[in-house]
Amino acid sequence: MGVAVADLDLAVDTYTRLFGAAIEHRATVVEQGVEAAALIVGDGRVELLRPLEPDSPVGRFLDSRGEGMHHVAFEVGDIRAALQSLRREGAELVDPEPREGLFGLEVAFVHPDSVHGVLAEVVSHG
Amino acid sequence: MGVAVADLDLAVDTYTRLFGAAIEHRATVVEQGVEAAALIVGDGRVELLRPLEPDSPVGRFLDSRGEGMHHVAFEVGDIRAALQSLRREGAELVDPEPREGLFGLEVAFVHPDSVHGVLAEVVSHG
Repeated sequence: MGVAVADLDLAVDTYTRLFGAAIEHRATVVEQGVEAAALIVGDGRVELLRPLEPDSPVGRFLDSRGEGMHHVAFEVGDIRAALQSLRREGAELVDPEPREGLFGLEVAFVHPDSVHGVLAEVVSHG
Repeated sequence: MGVAVADLDLAVDTYTRLFGAAIEHRATVVEQGVEAAALIVGDGRVELLRPLEPDSPVGRFLDSRGEGMHHVAFEVGDIRAALQSLRREGAELVDPEPREGLFGLEVAFVHPDSVHGVLAEVVSHG
């Protein structure tokens, strides 16, 4: 799950205290306009995203919706095969080809209109 | 992750086709005002929630926000200990005591104001 937050330090502290989260990665990625922290929470991961500027995808989300759940990511073995399958099933792809995501991952987003309002991401370790 | 949807059959079909989801449980729970399906997706679970009536928590969410991500659930071993720890850390609890959730689980919600806009649930097998 990816979460848009206003203050990354504060959010990392909250997830650590309340849910026993541990930081896996943390990085500022200027090209993507975010400062991000990947947290391990139990068997799952929570990715906290702070926009570097208002005029960015996460910045606009924060501005219009406020802090909260931004997207969900599903890990796949072969992202190209996953995209082919999604296309075959008629899903609208935000990214027709995989692109580099945070922390060196290969990612592609599926439009929320194809997933009942959920911005979904397929992700692989490349 | 819990997702509010308008049509449960359609949503189950979407997650099955696009993300290889498999149904774990499905039930109508009148007391909670929802028809719900728990899906296994990879290592994780997605819970799809269709309100039985507009004047219910998920119904009001759907009305004001539309379909989309509704909450996230963290599984814990001992839900009473988890609630005690959350209280100690100053989290605002929607449910100060565990209550029965879907599929026989024990659940308690934490207010989004304490989790940077995310409605969070702790859940245990009781």
